[in-house]
Amino acid sequence: MTADARSFLPGWHRIVAERDLDALFEVLADDVTMATPPYWDRLAGRDLVHHLLGIIIETIEGFTYHREWVEAGELALEFRGRVGDCELQGIDLISLDESGRIRALDVMVRPANALAALRERVAPRMQAFLAERAAAGPEG
Amino acid sequence: MTADARSFLPGWHRIVAERDLDALFEVLADDVTMATPPYWDRLAGRDLVHHLLGIIIETIEGFTYHREWVEAGELALEFRGRVGDCELQGIDLISLDESGRIRALDVMVRPANALAALRERVAPRMQAFLAERAAAGPEG
Repeated sequence: MTADARSFLPGWHRIVAERDLDALFEVLADDVTMATPPYWDRLAGRDLVHHLLGIIIETIEGFTYHREWVEAGELALEFRGRVGDCELQGIDLISLDESGRIRALDVMVRPANALAALRERVAPRMQAFLAERAAAGPEG
Repeated sequence: MTADARSFLPGWHRIVAERDLDALFEVLADDVTMATPPYWDRLAGRDLVHHLLGIIIETIEGFTYHREWVEAGELALEFRGRVGDCELQGIDLISLDESGRIRALDVMVRPANALAALRERVAPRMQAFLAERAAAGPEG
């Protein structure tokens, strides 16, 4: 699994750098869950996590990875970027499943003003997505 | 350095579990800096970082380390705990110097309500310490 986890990295870097949302979807497990910076409860399901991640990587400017750690199928990836005038530092804690797809992603960011700026931009778009989904009904 | 970084862990775990503030001081480099969850600017200097870390490990209840990553002299340590009614998840990113002491520590926590609860408890004690130090003058 260690080899798989290291081989996951170049593809992941490319997806984030190019904001490749189709490839992002492919790398998420069906039952992926995500722990977000603002809330304790995890977001569950491929569609939801894919949509939120897409908004986040579109919102953070100058997104670059820095220190990276790999232990078996678990990765810790430090990133930096900007939201508006706020410098931002964050970490992605990623758990891969047997097939090398993301089954859990925990994200933390600092400092508090950057998190607030990120929420301000991400929350309305996420709420619009959830409202659309709800309006479309259970088949939507 | 990899062997050193891994051998750093048992001592660090003991310091945090036993809240051993003397041993905590010994493991910090003179010019240690710390990136805290609320602010962008780093805190610099052994006394300041030692005092803040002491307050933080006294404030977080049920502090336990979970996933841990080591790459050369760089460590990423996931922790969990509680502040009041808030569950908290965090990460310590630690850089060791040549002598195996901490020269940089970056801390991120989630979710936002746990960070707010932590700040509420830590900030007044840290302000009191800074006021005392200022009153004692440059020799203090």
